[in-house]
Amino acid sequence: MTTPETPASVPAQARIDTRDRETLDGRRVGHEHRLRVRVYYEDTDFTGLVYHASYVRFFERGRTEFLRSVGLEHAKLLARADPCAFAVTRLDVRFQRSARIDDVLEVATAWREMKGARMLISQRIERHGEAIAMAEVEVVCITDKGTARRLPADLAATLRPLLE
Amino acid sequence: MTTPETPASVPAQARIDTRDRETLDGRRVGHEHRLRVRVYYEDTDFTGLVYHASYVRFFERGRTEFLRSVGLEHAKLLARADPCAFAVTRLDVRFQRSARIDDVLEVATAWREMKGARMLISQRIERHGEAIAMAEVEVVCITDKGTARRLPADLAATLRPLLE
Amino acid sequence: MTTPETPASVPAQARIDTRDRETLDGRRVGHEHRLRVRVYYEDTDFTGLVYHASYVRFFERGRTEFLRSVGLEHAKLLARADPCAFAVTRLDVRFQRSARIDDVLEVATAWREMKGARMLISQRIERHGEAIAMAEVEVVCITDKGTARRLPADLAATLRPLLE
Amino acid sequence: MTTPETPASVPAQARIDTRDRETLDGRRVGHEHRLRVRVYYEDTDFTGLVYHASYVRFFERGRTEFLRSVGLEHAKLLARADPCAFAVTRLDVRFQRSARIDDVLEVATAWREMKGARMLISQRIERHGEAIAMAEVEVVCITDKGTARRLPADLAATLRPLLE
Repeated sequence: MTTPETPASVPAQARIDTRDRETLDGRRVGHEHRLRVRVYYEDTDFTGLVYHASYVRFFERGRTEFLRSVGLEHAKLLARADPCAFAVTRLDVRFQRSARIDDVLEVATAWREMKGARMLISQRIERHGEAIAMAEVEVVCITDKGTARRLPADLAATLRPLLE
Repeated sequence: MTTPETPASVPAQARIDTRDRETLDGRRVGHEHRLRVRVYYEDTDFTGLVYHASYVRFFERGRTEFLRSVGLEHAKLLARADPCAFAVTRLDVRFQRSARIDDVLEVATAWREMKGARMLISQRIERHGEAIAMAEVEVVCITDKGTARRLPADLAATLRPLLE
Repeated sequence: MTTPETPASVPAQARIDTRDRETLDGRRVGHEHRLRVRVYYEDTDFTGLVYHASYVRFFERGRTEFLRSVGLEHAKLLARADPCAFAVTRLDVRFQRSARIDDVLEVATAWREMKGARMLISQRIERHGEAIAMAEVEVVCITDKGTARRLPADLAATLRPLLE
Repeated sequence: MTTPETPASVPAQARIDTRDRETLDGRRVGHEHRLRVRVYYEDTDFTGLVYHASYVRFFERGRTEFLRSVGLEHAKLLARADPCAFAVTRLDVRFQRSARIDDVLEVATAWREMKGARMLISQRIERHGEAIAMAEVEVVCITDKGTARRLPADLAATLRPLLE
C-alpha cells in the first residue's frame, strides 16, 4: 500500500501550493538559507549580462526569505507595538562572474553576528555551485521613526540560534 | 510497500531541483500558463503598496515563462540562424486592486492571436483568485536589426496549438 | 544694452541650482509639460535597447513633474489634513520606436480630463521630436486608506486651468 | 558692460538644450564630477524611504556622467575596433542617512587610481551637503568577450589627468 505524499483528501491545487511555497520561500541547509532566483529581461542590461544592481536586489530577496523562514516578515515587524524595521548600513559586494538572461541563480544567506542594534550577514550568489557574487551586509534595527534601536529581545531570541 | 515519489537513487538535491523548476517555471492549466511571483521590497513604493510599473515586470515574467514552457527562450531565439526577438508594441493594463509586500501573486498568461509578425496576449495578476491587474499585450516578432518580421514557421507551429 | 540672465551678486552655486531645477523639474510649453530624461544602463535590457517597463517609469516621472510644476508634490498630498494620493487605474502604452543607452528623451505630459475622482492624462516620449512611445493614463484620487475620493476642490481648481 | 550668457542670435530652443545638457550631464568641480538626481516613486520602497539598491543605480549614473564628461560613452566604447566596457568588480557602500521622495540628491564621483585593467572610484551621495551614502567602487576594463584587459592607452591618457 502506498503512502501518497499528501493525503488523498487534499486537493491537487493545495499540493501544488505547498511545493510553490517551498520554492518561493527557499529552504534552510544547516545555518544557511538558500533561495532560487530566475534572471529575467528586467535584470539584464545592454551588455547582455545581469546589471550589477540587480544582484543587490537578489541579495535583499535572500535576506527577506531568511527572515520569513523564522517567522519574521517586514510588514508584521512594522505593525508591532514597538514597530521595527531592518535598514542596510553597509553593503560590500564582490562581483566574480556574470549571470545571463534565463539563468537560475541561488542566493545563500547566513546570519553571522548580532550586537545591540547591529547584525552582520554573509551572502553568496551562485549558478550551479559557481560563485557569481559575494556580499557582506551590515543591517541595523530601526524604529518606525528611523532611529537605531537594540533588537527587541524576542527577535534576538529567534535569530540567535541561527548564527553561523 | 511504498512507492517513493522519486527513486531512492536520486539524490535529495536533484529532487529539490525538480520541484524548484516546477515553481520557477510555473505551470500550464489548460490554455493558460500560471506563474507564482513574490512581492519584495524592490516592488513597493513609498505609499506602502506595489509600484504600478512592477506589475509590468511581473507580466513580462509571465510571458517569458509561457514561452519557456513550450521550449522558447529569449537567448536561444536571438542565437538562431534567423535571429528573432519579441518586442512589445502595445500594453494596455487595468489596475484593479493593490498588492503589498510579502504577497504571493499569480500571473496568468494566454496567447490569443497570431497574424504575420503580431501576437495578442491576455494576462491577469491575481492574489488568491482576486484580480489585481489585467493586461492586453501586443507583441511583434523582430529581427536582430529591430525590423518586424513574420513569425518563423517553426515558432508559429509551436505556438498555434496554445491559442486560446 | 543687455540684461544678464542672473545679477552679478548672485553666487555661482545659486545660479547653478536655479538652472538645475529648471532641467530637473522640466518646463511648461503651452498646456504641455516637458521633461528631459537620460537613458542609463539601468534602463536597458540584454537586447541592447531600453526595457519596455522603463518607459512606464519615465511616464511616471513626467506626471510627477507636471504636478510639481503646479505646486503639487506626492509627499505633501499625503500629509494634508485630508490625505490623498494619485493611483494609476489604467495605462495604455503604444511603443513605436526603441531608445538606447545614452539617449536623451523628452517626456511630454498633458492633463486631458477631470471628473469626480478620475483624471485622464496623455503622454508622449520623444527623441529629438521622433515619437518613441505614447500613453493614455487614467489616474484616480484616493484617500490614505486606498479608497477613491472626489478630487479635493483646491486641487481641482489648481488643475482645471491646465486641461488641454 | 556685461556679456550675455548666450548670443542673441541663438534660438530659444538651443539655449534651453544647452542648459538641459549642463544639468543632465552634471559638471566638474575640481577633480570631482557632480550630478543632480531627483528621487521618484520608482526609487522608494514601502517604508517611505529610498530603497537601498536605488542608490546603487544613482552611483552608476554618476560614473556614467563622469566618463561622458571626458568624452567616453558606453555605447561608443563597445563600438571601438578593440571593444571595451567597464565592469564593476567590487562595490562597498556605507548608507548614512535616508533620502525621501521628491529629494534632489547630488552624486559626487572621483577617479582615484588606475592600474592595469583596474580603476578605483570614490563616490558620495549628498542632500544639500549632508552625506546620504558613500561608495568605494572597483571597476575593470573588459573586452566584449568579458575578459579583463589593460585599459587602452588612449583611455588611460584621457583618465589619468583626472585622478584625484
